[in-house]
Amino acid sequence: MKPRRKTWRAMYDGKRAQLRPIGVIRSSIKKPSEAPRQGSEGAPDAWLEINPLLSEGLDGLVVGDQVIVVTWLHLARRNVLKVHPRSDTSRPLTGVFATRSPDRPNPLGLHPVTVHEVANNRLRIGPIEAVDGTPVVDIKPALRG
Amino acid sequence: MKPRRKTWRAMYDGKRAQLRPIGVIRSSIKKPSEAPRQGSEGAPDAWLEINPLLSEGLDGLVVGDQVIVVTWLHLARRNVLKVHPRSDTSRPLTGVFATRSPDRPNPLGLHPVTVHEVANNRLRIGPIEAVDGTPVVDIKPALRG
Repeated sequence: MKPRRKTWRAMYDGKRAQLRPIGVIRSSIKKPSEAPRQGSEGAPDAWLEINPLLSEGLDGLVVGDQVIVVTWLHLARRNVLKVHPRSDTSRPLTGVFATRSPDRPNPLGLHPVTVHEVANNRLRIGPIEAVDGTPVVDIKPALRG
Repeated sequence: MKPRRKTWRAMYDGKRAQLRPIGVIRSSIKKPSEAPRQGSEGAPDAWLEINPLLSEGLDGLVVGDQVIVVTWLHLARRNVLKVHPRSDTSRPLTGVFATRSPDRPNPLGLHPVTVHEVANNRLRIGPIEAVDGTPVVDIKPALRG
């Protein structure tokens, strides 16, 4: 038991895994109640505004690229381990790691989007269901396979 | 200019986006030099050991599920904005957000894997290129296009 307990303590207290937002979503969706549950369910396009100090990191991204925008869902609850999928109480309580609920210990959002425009440190992307002001923490090429 | 500067300051200093590892990768890959660059490039299966306090969050995950494991690439460098893709110096320097380099401001790894076994708070998953000891911060159902 000892090594395992030591591991968990070290992971929680020791290593700092502090996210630094690289950008922010500028969207017409102003509150969660206006947002579809997934980008593919009628979400609009939005601007992703990157910290100008980091804009070099965008070099190579071009219009038409499929990327995954990783957000920090700052309005989510972190102390939830089970939810009714899609808030449908007729569906059984399910572990958050088997769902796309924003409520989860680390409320990261993964948004597969297309790049529609690149303008200095701003990208026009979509469709994306994230609300205006959502911090962005990473951008990656779309997953294959 | 004022609102924009205020935004960046608020995002960096104010909101805490502190990740709390939910688990750890137990792999036969012991150092980065042994790891393939992508899971699909000959990586092994591995165990994902979840903090027992959070194992409720796994309810509903079953063998055969396709999930995305999100890791914190704790060995990566955070102060890098451009890299040669795949460390191939014949390829031009490219912004990290257009690549899958582990080196990036927030070194998050996205690993699409299959669940091969569920044993209490441990999942057998793969293929996955993450090294032994890599902290896991989230698990999500696979993205649909």
